[in-house]
Amino acid sequence: MSDFHDAAKNGLNQLQFEAVLRQVGAERYHNLHPFHHQMTQGALTKGQMQAWALNRYCYQSVIPRKDAMILARAEDPAFRAEWRKRIEDHDGADGWNGGIARWLKLATGLGLPAQDVIGERLALPATRFAVGAYLSFCTNRTLLEAVGSSLTELFSPVIIAERVPAMLAKYDYVTEDILAYFKPRPEQASRDSDFALAYVLAHADNPERQQSVIDALVFKCDILWAMLDALKHAYGEAGHIPPGAFRPEERG
Amino acid sequence: MSDFHDAAKNGLNQLQFEAVLRQVGAERYHNLHPFHHQMTQGALTKGQMQAWALNRYCYQSVIPRKDAMILARAEDPAFRAEWRKRIEDHDGADGWNGGIARWLKLATGLGLPAQDVIGERLALPATRFAVGAYLSFCTNRTLLEAVGSSLTELFSPVIIAERVPAMLAKYDYVTEDILAYFKPRPEQASRDSDFALAYVLAHADNPERQQSVIDALVFKCDILWAMLDALKHAYGEAGHIPPGAFRPEERG
Repeated sequence: MSDFHDAAKNGLNQLQFEAVLRQVGAERYHNLHPFHHQMTQGALTKGQMQAWALNRYCYQSVIPRKDAMILARAEDPAFRAEWRKRIEDHDGADGWNGGIARWLKLATGLGLPAQDVIGERLALPATRFAVGAYLSFCTNRTLLEAVGSSLTELFSPVIIAERVPAMLAKYDYVTEDILAYFKPRPEQASRDSDFALAYVLAHADNPERQQSVIDALVFKCDILWAMLDALKHAYGEAGHIPPGAFRPEERG
Repeated sequence: MSDFHDAAKNGLNQLQFEAVLRQVGAERYHNLHPFHHQMTQGALTKGQMQAWALNRYCYQSVIPRKDAMILARAEDPAFRAEWRKRIEDHDGADGWNGGIARWLKLATGLGLPAQDVIGERLALPATRFAVGAYLSFCTNRTLLEAVGSSLTELFSPVIIAERVPAMLAKYDYVTEDILAYFKPRPEQASRDSDFALAYVLAHADNPERQQSVIDALVFKCDILWAMLDALKHAYGEAGHIPPGAFRPEERG
């Protein structure tokens, strides 16, 4: 395992810098997490799948807000026009026909009541803390770091390509219809991450800024990893569900 | 398990309100967590004790900052003069002879290098997210809610009375000297929580404000619980240490 803490200390050319960023994904992205492996192996119970969808909703629902925060901090109209597409993707034309609505459809398709998902009260506190950390990061760090933290989208087409066919093949209650969220995502993510990658390659023009982008991407990988850690701890074999959180067995 | 979400909906008199707050502690405080039980039973390895001290340091180190945020938001000089004692307790006269320094002594007494503890880089991301959520809460919520979130100190003399004798009795490498942090804490916590409790009883003067205090205390219990969940998941039997975090086995 690499230590990325001083990966840029001597300065990197653009090829080297991009290679380090891709290496962060190769070592830290949550497609390496045991919970993802269990999902793709067909080893999750329906309750575990519900817990995943319920908790991940908290993440989905905050994405347009963190993107709006990035928009609010960007001075370049062309940057804003490009970045705005992310908000449009998630909120859709009326707020409830974009990515968030499709994630809600996934969660309800797995048998969860919509109000339990939207209310977010049954989500794990650890999920809320991780999601809040992401929003705070994009609020308080530099614009370059906020853009850098979005670069996990470089790797999301891979995890979606692993997840969707496995979910369809291994869980008889999962249909293409309830997985509609994922259909446009690889294309959107590629468009978005191409733009974000070009931005950081152009703007991280000294070792300190390069390191800040690398650290931002590690941070974001930590967020996604911690969300799956929390799910695995609460809903895994040991079953340490914290007080007040979703309890699958009460819903059959 | 109670659902505290609408505990105050019909309004509570002061006795009832205090009883609900104490009930939150009776059901949600982290002295009920399995990791705490393992600690008091003498069942933790030295590596697990180190991981606990290392991660908890991140919490200790942010306490004076969240108290300074409360100070910054308080308009009453008498309130500020009282609340300021908390910062003095943790930072001491010169920054390094108060509670934080004593926690560092505990961590180094367990065999950790001081720079690994102070650097916080080896802490679990989930710890950082929980601690960050606490600081954000005290920054962004009402002063009443920030004070309410401090009320876990009502229960801390109990957990310290369980923890300290057990640590001394069950772990031969634990001495009174390295547990110096805990010696003044019950008295300080009682003074502080008496003040905070009187404050919320006086200022939560309608059902909505009472509920906001109850929710704040539940939130704070969630923070402490999530920190032990993260420790147990990473360093428990299954050993799911996330990338980049402290690995006890490398330190013997």
